[in-house]
Amino acid sequence: MSVEVAIDVPAGSPARVATPAPGDPRLARLSLNQRTTANASLREAIDGALAAGLNSIGLWREPVAEVGTTVAREWVESAGLRVSSLCRGGFFTASDPADRVAALDMNRAAIDEAAVLGARTLVLVPGGLPPGEKDLVGARSRVVDAVAELAPYALERNVTLGIEPMNPIYAADRGVVSTLAQALDIAEQFSPAAVGVIVDTFHLWWEPGIEAQLLRAGERILSYQICDWITPLPADALLARGMIGDGHIDFGAFTRAVAAAGYRGDVEVEIFNAEIWAAPPEEVVATMARRYVELVEPYL
Amino acid sequence: MSVEVAIDVPAGSPARVATPAPGDPRLARLSLNQRTTANASLREAIDGALAAGLNSIGLWREPVAEVGTTVAREWVESAGLRVSSLCRGGFFTASDPADRVAALDMNRAAIDEAAVLGARTLVLVPGGLPPGEKDLVGARSRVVDAVAELAPYALERNVTLGIEPMNPIYAADRGVVSTLAQALDIAEQFSPAAVGVIVDTFHLWWEPGIEAQLLRAGERILSYQICDWITPLPADALLARGMIGDGHIDFGAFTRAVAAAGYRGDVEVEIFNAEIWAAPPEEVVATMARRYVELVEPYL
Repeated sequence: MSVEVAIDVPAGSPARVATPAPGDPRLARLSLNQRTTANASLREAIDGALAAGLNSIGLWREPVAEVGTTVAREWVESAGLRVSSLCRGGFFTASDPADRVAALDMNRAAIDEAAVLGARTLVLVPGGLPPGEKDLVGARSRVVDAVAELAPYALERNVTLGIEPMNPIYAADRGVVSTLAQALDIAEQFSPAAVGVIVDTFHLWWEPGIEAQLLRAGERILSYQICDWITPLPADALLARGMIGDGHIDFGAFTRAVAAAGYRGDVEVEIFNAEIWAAPPEEVVATMARRYVELVEPYL
Repeated sequence: MSVEVAIDVPAGSPARVATPAPGDPRLARLSLNQRTTANASLREAIDGALAAGLNSIGLWREPVAEVGTTVAREWVESAGLRVSSLCRGGFFTASDPADRVAALDMNRAAIDEAAVLGARTLVLVPGGLPPGEKDLVGARSRVVDAVAELAPYALERNVTLGIEPMNPIYAADRGVVSTLAQALDIAEQFSPAAVGVIVDTFHLWWEPGIEAQLLRAGERILSYQICDWITPLPADALLARGMIGDGHIDFGAFTRAVAAAGYRGDVEVEIFNAEIWAAPPEEVVATMARRYVELVEPYL
């Protein structure tokens, strides 16, 4: 009898554990964020998640828009998948009044879509410094203003806004909220039913005192997203995220702290990485499932 | 009468202000960190600093070693320059006992050199995760242990240890101390005469609540180092620092907060950047002097 050994992507090394089969209870909380298989359509992502035995998917607005929100909801429901989150709203930092109005309109549309899709959580990427501006304190305060403006709208539609603190590597151009502590300082100004936080290992693994902040977050943790910090950092900083286990993050310790905070939701694998996007999606999903049952699930 | 317009490097754009001449009182606190003109020898760096009218230089151990510490001290003294800091000790995170002993020995040698050179401050780069290890909490605690071991040795030699918190982009491979708050949590365990902090805009510009942390730091600020955060981030993350004014940092606001903390020392320009290293050193020094008198000095 010969045994075919699976290969992890993009590492190219033999798998250390067997690929969990559909129905394996360890897969119960694993969610495929669409961005991990960025070149797949929504249909392909749903089918890939099903084939791998997943019960949950993290959706992105752009591929959803290709088929329309209603069709997307039907597909997801027929597949029996949960929608662990919808990415993404946010980009709140514009100083120009017209741009701010446009950002709020965009976010109301995203909240509406989340409601139709049955996504409890809309992920908010705060936005970076406006072009040519350097007032970080001002940009940060505009994030708070925008969340305050949107919170009632979200609450009425049973959608919770998830502020995503982002690694300081993105503070200038993508996300001015840089720590979980800072995200909680904002979220705690609102009802937990309206505003929570997104916890992503890539963004937060380095934060001093992260365990205490996770405990503080408690029920406000709306999504636990996982990918690794790899070095040397890939040349394109926006695509610098690694497959779980390929980098420096201690997923056991981090995951234990997330579990200790009371988080019982899905665990989304969200990886922006050109090599992973170039690999066959089914191999990406199989690798992430293996790494998840090896490095994350035992600590939940 | 024709006017020759100076060109800023590496931007290639015309200078916005005139180059301050030697003797200009605005240059009184500007220091050239040797790493900004990394391809220059110590002799060339001293001569370049003098020609530009600077009164201070930040030394690195490697170019100092090329001529020996005693000769280096004679050169610096003859030139009438202050030594704003010596780079660098640190790299404290090894878990292997023999590696830890070697690191402590290296740091004692660096403290001795700082004493001979008349440098009040030895800059400590904490070190990253040991190869293959993921225990960030453990690595951070070994930094505290090493500082505790070295503090009395430094104090006896009238050298102050400067813990440098580093941008989280380097948390895995270079510096596990990631915020000024965290660096102060360590430094405050020791006498201010023995242990302080290095404040570098590149590392700390994004830190939530940085103004309050700078006030907290007060007399523990041993060196104020400046360079910019530029986007897109250059491909080599270790050489990602920009010329003052080329990026996103609000030097006015940051410098005001450093001054409000009571800092009266030199301001070191330390830039790791391949384009800047490739430019003629005298143009680099002239550009940094112009940017300094435009964007930094008025706020000191």
